[in-house]
Amino acid sequence: MEQRAVTACVLIIGNEILSGRTQDVNLNHIALTLGGWGIQVREARVIPDIHSVIVATVNETRAVYDYVFTTGGIGPTHDDITADCIAEAFGVDLVLHPEIASRIEKRPAPPDVMASRMRMARVPEGATLVDNPTGGPQGFRIENVFVMAGIPAVMQAMLSSLEGKLERGPVVLSRSVTAYLGESQIAGALRDIQARYPGVDLGSYPFFRSDRYGTSLVIRGTEEERLDTMLEEVKAAIIAAGETPQDVRKQ
Amino acid sequence: MEQRAVTACVLIIGNEILSGRTQDVNLNHIALTLGGWGIQVREARVIPDIHSVIVATVNETRAVYDYVFTTGGIGPTHDDITADCIAEAFGVDLVLHPEIASRIEKRPAPPDVMASRMRMARVPEGATLVDNPTGGPQGFRIENVFVMAGIPAVMQAMLSSLEGKLERGPVVLSRSVTAYLGESQIAGALRDIQARYPGVDLGSYPFFRSDRYGTSLVIRGTEEERLDTMLEEVKAAIIAAGETPQDVRKQ
Repeated sequence: MEQRAVTACVLIIGNEILSGRTQDVNLNHIALTLGGWGIQVREARVIPDIHSVIVATVNETRAVYDYVFTTGGIGPTHDDITADCIAEAFGVDLVLHPEIASRIEKRPAPPDVMASRMRMARVPEGATLVDNPTGGPQGFRIENVFVMAGIPAVMQAMLSSLEGKLERGPVVLSRSVTAYLGESQIAGALRDIQARYPGVDLGSYPFFRSDRYGTSLVIRGTEEERLDTMLEEVKAAIIAAGETPQDVRKQ
Repeated sequence: MEQRAVTACVLIIGNEILSGRTQDVNLNHIALTLGGWGIQVREARVIPDIHSVIVATVNETRAVYDYVFTTGGIGPTHDDITADCIAEAFGVDLVLHPEIASRIEKRPAPPDVMASRMRMARVPEGATLVDNPTGGPQGFRIENVFVMAGIPAVMQAMLSSLEGKLERGPVVLSRSVTAYLGESQIAGALRDIQARYPGVDLGSYPFFRSDRYGTSLVIRGTEEERLDTMLEEVKAAIIAAGETPQDVRKQ
């Protein structure tokens, strides 16, 4: 019996990514980590720090995917509006979470600084915590939406705390091989192979390296044996095109 | 009189980004380049190589933004389906574009290889070309949608060919300054400054570097003078919090 796929959407919340000021690295880390846990990232959106946009995007995506993971906008400053938006998306109040508050109170600060910091203790009513192993304020989960920090090191720590706590589907495995061939030299063979393996994804990703064109052929699917057979067919096609299969990887 | 903002959405088409196999770098380049041309990237989506998803996403976003830029899926292999999807999104046929075909024919190849390569000459009826200064097959434009390659060097070349050919709005300029302060130490002052400058965006982006927490304060807007005045207020707030403003940048 085939196991149901478990899907996720990643929402990168932040003007700094859309302006080009910051190169996002969170999507890549989340995709690899969730992939290893049997959760497939099917879509990602980068959206600005605009209340109505965040609310609408959260509501649209949480209805479609098993899980939604957000990064960014949960700090103590005026532009950190993610918690407010998630509460609105779920139609609940924002409340002070005592565990986050007690973690924040452990570091002494003048009253005005503490008041700003306490913004980070606000979570939508009914939310549970996503631990923050770096020791800072926690993230939170409400239904199928996980709200994490934007700083990569903090996001990564928060995500790691979820290991083993999420539903998992079959892990998508991959086989890859590269060849110094123009894609079109092997396109016909690849099309034939793909046609014989419905349900397994055969991708061709061209690159240009050391003055030569090449392509990475990536096979992705959940059934190990079929992937291996398909890999052999792809290698044979590379040889038939007069080149040598290189850099074979199984993951 | 205020100039109207010109907006864009970027669609990154490719399973390899969603699987985490490849780190996207195209969004960042497009955002910076368009920003310099007075076009604001307001959203980006990373979507898989699935026909129905691409068609729906193109139709949804082209109705909302002035421009949509896609990357990926225009090569010669079976998994390159972007042109087919764009044609369907616009309800037109795919046709062979003679200029792309003639560029492809210049490099001799056996008939089967040439047939695969000719896939890259297919464009939606009515599309015009986006030049490819690397010498390879061109991308294309249909109405407000621009279709470019996924390989970063090729995408960058294609995008550069559009310089001066697009509508432009006011360029969003920025002022930034960093301080080794926890965000909450300055959050109150930032909130007050932001409240006095509606229409200018004041963002606070925390970082952790050399074992210290700091934050980058970024002011973004279109009116140079207001940005400069606001920058002075932010610097004063940093000094009032007992720290030294560092790394001031004007862009």
